[in-house]
Amino acid sequence: MYIIGELINGMYKRIGRAILARDASVIQQVARAQVEAGVDALDVNCGPGSKDQAGDIRWLIETIGAVTDKPLSIDASNPQVIEEGLKVCQNKPIINSTTADPQKLERLIPLALKYNADLIGIAISSQGIPQNRDQRVELAAGIVSACLERGLGAERLFLDPIVLPVNVAQAQMKDILESIRDFKLVCAPPPRTLIGLSNVSQGSLHRGLINRTFLVMAVAAGLDAAILNPCDKELIDALITAELISDKQIYCDSFLEAYRKK
Amino acid sequence: MYIIGELINGMYKRIGRAILARDASVIQQVARAQVEAGVDALDVNCGPGSKDQAGDIRWLIETIGAVTDKPLSIDASNPQVIEEGLKVCQNKPIINSTTADPQKLERLIPLALKYNADLIGIAISSQGIPQNRDQRVELAAGIVSACLERGLGAERLFLDPIVLPVNVAQAQMKDILESIRDFKLVCAPPPRTLIGLSNVSQGSLHRGLINRTFLVMAVAAGLDAAILNPCDKELIDALITAELISDKQIYCDSFLEAYRKK
Repeated sequence: MYIIGELINGMYKRIGRAILARDASVIQQVARAQVEAGVDALDVNCGPGSKDQAGDIRWLIETIGAVTDKPLSIDASNPQVIEEGLKVCQNKPIINSTTADPQKLERLIPLALKYNADLIGIAISSQGIPQNRDQRVELAAGIVSACLERGLGAERLFLDPIVLPVNVAQAQMKDILESIRDFKLVCAPPPRTLIGLSNVSQGSLHRGLINRTFLVMAVAAGLDAAILNPCDKELIDALITAELISDKQIYCDSFLEAYRKK
Repeated sequence: MYIIGELINGMYKRIGRAILARDASVIQQVARAQVEAGVDALDVNCGPGSKDQAGDIRWLIETIGAVTDKPLSIDASNPQVIEEGLKVCQNKPIINSTTADPQKLERLIPLALKYNADLIGIAISSQGIPQNRDQRVELAAGIVSACLERGLGAERLFLDPIVLPVNVAQAQMKDILESIRDFKLVCAPPPRTLIGLSNVSQGSLHRGLINRTFLVMAVAAGLDAAILNPCDKELIDALITAELISDKQIYCDSFLEAYRKK
């Protein structure tokens, strides 16, 4: 599993305050904690309270880049903000994210090519959130075609079926999981599949339980990557075990420790 | 999920001793504990140490039947022992189990019809354990055909893909999970699918973690029934959450409590 740590996000109060105060030590501590927990990349998001997104994302990227060379997932809805981040990013960048809207794809695919960034494509459009499996596949296929046409190979792309909270969209959960299987069939070689996990438990009690159960089900569907809290020990234990059962790492009695060391 | 409690099995030392000593209070206490934990049925197995399997199974069935009217899964490899159990069983019986071998099917299907029992069919034969998905489906289809030919409807049948320990058969885990999907396509209406869960973690450390992770993956594949430890709280929490995500019970904030009350 390609793990992108979610903890550097201005929506968390401590991070939001650190961004405002330009307190590098808080950000760097959270970056290091996630790297020690074994992430493959770090998500970077200014959060909803940011009044200067371009300035904040530049500062975050430089601050994090000073303590780790892990790839950074530049997470913003405004392509302008993403480009400001890409300009200063010395780590391998991931663009988080494009939708299936042509104007987004036209803007972000060239940025991915120019800055040698991977690209997260979310199966959503300005028409709204897809309501079923077919709509998800249609949107995903549109993203893949646009990338391939412009010369961005599928190996550079993560496709996200858009995870909704179980407390408001319970009937869609199975479709979301099945979409992970469907996305692997959109082209060959297939793009990687990705979910932003925590959204599934937004507004629920028992958040940890819902998160890890959904993640295990997504691994069973063939999930390749997830944006999640890498410091949630029970979540990572469940993830490692699901990958063990999926034959993605060799069994040994101490498989939890072996995976973490790797 | 149709839950069959696994705890009345002579292989557990306390149960084995209680069977030998004809100590009804131990057996009845374990029966009651499983019923309180919410099982749909109870498995009854004399265990490997039994020197008088027919006598032991009769005593167990009568002893359990005195405290619960839940269905009893009469678990023995010898059809003669199963029949002895069926003769005295006042609860709804489940025959656990037949293999795909013709001589077993010829003996056990008529018993299921005669005693109005459900039947667990394991995708295994005297040729050994299936080595891949195709072999599992072939064996399952053989069991289904034999039942339908003799007038035992698929709704009376549980098909078991035979769960192997992850520490010795890791490469087969994915096939076992996919078989659960395959078995639902063998006939229409489909038979129910069932696993004996605990075998997956036989000989491993972290047994609880492996059990609940595998169970969640099996629920994602559409599993209908499982023989498991209903008193393992973390296991049942994971099961309930997987069923919630699979849209098999309506969301409410206290979904864990709501499921248990039901």
